[in-house]
Parts: sequence; structure tokens; C-alpha cells
Amino acid sequence: MKILDRHEIDAALDKDTVIKAVREAFVSHSQGHIQSPSPLHMTFRDEAGLRTGDCHVKSAHSNHHKVIAIKVAIGMYKNAEKGVPVNNGLVLLLSRETGEPVALLQDEGLLTTYRTAAAGAIASGLASTKADDVLGIVGTGNQAFHQAEWTTHYLGLKKVMVFGRSTAKAADLTSKLSAHGLSAVRADSVAQLCANCRIVITTTPASDPIIMASDLPDGPRTNIHFVAVGADTHGKQELDAEILARAATVVADDLKQCLDHGDLAAANALGLIDPDQIVSLGSALAKGLSITEGVSVADLTGLGAQDLAIATLVT
Amino acid sequence: MKILDRHEIDAALDKDTVIKAVREAFVSHSQGHIQSPSPLHMTFRDEAGLRTGDCHVKSAHSNHHKVIAIKVAIGMYKNAEKGVPVNNGLVLLLSRETGEPVALLQDEGLLTTYRTAAAGAIASGLASTKADDVLGIVGTGNQAFHQAEWTTHYLGLKKVMVFGRSTAKAADLTSKLSAHGLSAVRADSVAQLCANCRIVITTTPASDPIIMASDLPDGPRTNIHFVAVGADTHGKQELDAEILARAATVVADDLKQCLDHGDLAAANALGLIDPDQIVSLGSALAKGLSITEGVSVADLTGLGAQDLAIATLVT
Repeated sequence: MKILDRHEIDAALDKDTVIKAVREAFVSHSQGHIQSPSPLHMTFRDEAGLRTGDCHVKSAHSNHHKVIAIKVAIGMYKNAEKGVPVNNGLVLLLSRETGEPVALLQDEGLLTTYRTAAAGAIASGLASTKADDVLGIVGTGNQAFHQAEWTTHYLGLKKVMVFGRSTAKAADLTSKLSAHGLSAVRADSVAQLCANCRIVITTTPASDPIIMASDLPDGPRTNIHFVAVGADTHGKQELDAEILARAATVVADDLKQCLDHGDLAAANALGLIDPDQIVSLGSALAKGLSITEGVSVADLTGLGAQDLAIATLVT
Repeated sequence: MKILDRHEIDAALDKDTVIKAVREAFVSHSQGHIQSPSPLHMTFRDEAGLRTGDCHVKSAHSNHHKVIAIKVAIGMYKNAEKGVPVNNGLVLLLSRETGEPVALLQDEGLLTTYRTAAAGAIASGLASTKADDVLGIVGTGNQAFHQAEWTTHYLGLKKVMVFGRSTAKAADLTSKLSAHGLSAVRADSVAQLCANCRIVITTTPASDPIIMASDLPDGPRTNIHFVAVGADTHGKQELDAEILARAATVVADDLKQCLDHGDLAAANALGLIDPDQIVSLGSALAKGLSITEGVSVADLTGLGAQDLAIATLVT
């Protein structure tokens, strides 16, 4: 059994290879070639019953992959007080032929970060862009940084605008992105961000919408493509349901998951979208969909197919 | 992260310590102290849609344990043709405090074998026995051997009688048990086994009952205690539902699991048992239940609490 740590895993991956593999994974998923059964969920509580952490175990396999991927992701909220990262994780790979353990990838969540950044870049690429278009990022965390880096790399963009509720954190992120050779500025408001950006990627754990329909520029010639990455579980929502209602094109990485706990859930509950009109990301990619104008939304909830694809690259 | 293989794990365990820990685990489970959420299940099929293997991931944790146990068990049915064991598995332990990986136990299923053997011994111990009582074993596989070894050790018995549908395999098992210092003989029929044994442990993957009510000796003075270990998933059944109906005492490791997919499921579906009269193994142990006469049954389906208890011993 091969055992690799975070640094060894990082050294084995480059953006272009990961993006290509994740792109193929979305297509395979939409064609029903990847099996990913219901995850296992654990919730941790203290003696008083307060939630102190959670863990989920996801898996994916297919007849076309040599390995079965089992991903463990765990978050213990009080770690920050102890100077330990809140999130941790690893991926276990078993042989699809014999079931024998093949590798343990002690990635501490790095593979999830990368496969999610790759997905954001790929979903951003559904919108047509020019080289001087601005990429908007909402949120200032780890995923915000990677979304900016991977998406500008993939689409050949140079300009990034960041909005965060914390001005200090947003300024930190623009500095970090500038140090990586990007032209990064901070937006004072969500409306300012929407007025300037062709693509807006949301990367927050918000439970109430952070972008409202009223933040969008008026007029029928508004061309803005939203990629919602943050809502990965029940109770999270980043986009006002009215934005979904206004969107000419809505794309979902997995329709069932997005209607269950993605940004589509609230809009669907209000009857503002027609599930039959939603396009799966994999089929959009297979067909070469290119969105040239209007308001559009891609909702990403994360797929086992992505985990399987990126883990396969490491082994 | 500590990584231990099967031999290192085996060396770290002895029967008495395992039995004590598993006993405490049943009591904790019955008191609601152990959390074990719904498992993750994978089914593998070939291109023709035929089932070629399966995998399940189970977990358990509590506020009283330093580790979270995540157990992966996988079976690939065609391995035998390749000279590779059909079943494989490992246990991953994460810190209950920080979520960091603590240990990987590459036990290849050994911990499950031992915690199941310990459970059979403990459930057998609910029946009062004398030193010259005979332990009956139905089945001739790996678990049959361990049930005989662990239960005779725990209860201080010397005599074992084995029934298997394959005479050759039953003879092999009696030879193996004799080599371990036991007085082991083969039964020609289930009825002969039932006529001679105080305790009968069933360890088969039978999908149709292997012990019928008509195999029991007649008369009200029949004293026989059944421990059903084999039925661990839907569609398996070892004991005729009429035996459950006749039992004065019925014990379950977990009532919900046993009614769902244990030997109790069929009897309950037929209305032959009253779920309110079923005693949980943990509370039976806590109260010191001792069954001195009549027909009794203990149904074991396997608990996450057992996995957590035995894995904790190794780290």
C-alpha cells in the first residue's frame, strides 16, 4: 500500500492535468458511468449537546477506473483555538479488481480544494470571455484564492475583483493574488462587483443569500455568469432565488444534489425555476455550450466523480 | 499516523481483553452512548450487470472514546479464482478531539472476526452451563472455528459438536478444534446437534433456515440456547421463525437492526414474536441475566460499538 502525504500529492499534480481529468469526470457522471452511493455522515456534539464537528465519508467507483475512491473529510470547529487546522481529510484507494488497499492519500483536504477549484474554472468556462474581462470572487478564504488562481489560469484572464464582508480579509486576498501576478482589486459592495465582472464565483459558507437580484446591473444587456461553489449542504445559500428566476441558462453539476441542497433548492421550493430546463454540467461540456450573453448560473455541489478523477491522477 | 498490519494487530490482542471490551461496548450501546450512523454501501457489477462484489463503510464514535473508528469491509467474489482472499478490510482511526488521522489498521478483516467471536462467546454466556455441556457449532468456515475457540475459552467448556452441510469440511473443522485441545465431534444432522448441545451457535451465510423447529428435541424440558451470528444483511436467515416463537427469552444486540435484517426479521414479519418482549444484549449483561432453562435465542447483527471497542485496544 502506497502512502503519500500532502506535499507528495501536491508535487504529483498540475492544474492542466487536473482540469482535463475533472472535465472528463463531469461528462462521465452525466452519462451515468460513475457510481457514488449515499455518503456516511457523522455529527459530533459536546456533553451539552452543542455541535462541535462533523465528518462525511463519500465514495465513487466505475467499471472504467482501476481504483475505488473512499474520501473522508472531517471538521472539528474548536481546532482553531488549539492552532490546529479545522478541516482534515484523506482518501483511501482500493483496487476495483480485488478490493485490496492500493494507496492512502493523506492530503488533509488538498484534493478536495483542487478538484473544487478545477470545477469552478470549468463551469466558468461555459461563459464566453475576452482577455480583459474581470473575474469576480465573493469570499476570502482558501477556496476563494484557489478559484481565482485556477479560473484565471484556465480562461487566460488577468483581472480579479474581490468582495468579502471583512475588508481586511478581502485586502489580504487581493495582495496574495497580486503577488501571484494577477491584477486584483477589492470591491466595496456586491453591486460594484456585479457591475464590473463577466463571471462571479461565490465561495462562502453563507446560509442567507449574499448576492441579491437587486445587486445586478439593470437592463436586458447585463452579461453575468455566476458560479456558486459554497453551498454544499442543507441550509447554505449564496444566490438570491430571484437571480435563478432571471437566469436564461441554469447549469447543475448534479440536478438531484443541486435541488436537494445547492443554490437551486430555494429557487425550486419557491417555484421560480423549471427543473426540466436545467442543463447538466457534463452534457453542457459534451455539447460545447458557450454562453455569450444574459444572466446565467452554474450550481456546483461536488461529485464523487471529481474525487475519483483526481485521486486516480496521483496513483 | 501509526500503521499496523494484521500480524501486529493480532499480537496486540488477547481473548480476555477483547471479550471484556466488547462486553462493555454492548452495555454502552444499550445505554445510547455510542453513535453509529447509517453505513455507506457500494455494490460492484460487471458489464453484464452481474454483482461481482460489495463494500460497506461503518463508523462509530462516542464522547468517551479518544478515537473515531471508520471500518471499511470489502468482498470481491472472483478473488478466489485468482488465489486472493475474497474479503479484505481495514479500520481507520481519527482523533475524536482534532479529527487528525491517528492510525490505519490493515487488519484484512481480523478485527471483525475477533469482535464477532467475542460477541458470540458473550451471548452464549447468557445461558447457564456446566463444565461438561456441549457447544454446538453450525457452519464450518473461519467464523465457525473462532466461535468454537472463543466460546469454549470464555465458558470453560471442552466439548464441541459440529454440523456442516459438507461432511468433509465438518471433519476438517473437528480435526482443527481437536488440535487445539478440544473434544470435537461431527453431528450427522441438525437434530442430533440439538439433542446433544446446551448452546448452538450458527455461523452460516444461509438464506433459508438451517435449523427447523422440528429439529429440536420434544418436551417442555428442552434446554437449548441459540446464538445466531450469520445473518448480517437482508435475505439471510439461519433459524426457523417457529423457534423464535417457541423461545421463552429472545435477546438482540440491537433491536432495530435485528428486526430489519437479523433472524428476528422473518419471525416478526409473521407476527410470531412481540418486539416489546425482546431484551437488548447490553441490558441483559448489565442486569446479569442468566438463562437456566427452556429455549432461548440471541440474535447478533454486529455493532459499530464492537468495532470501536476492539480498535481502541490496538492503539
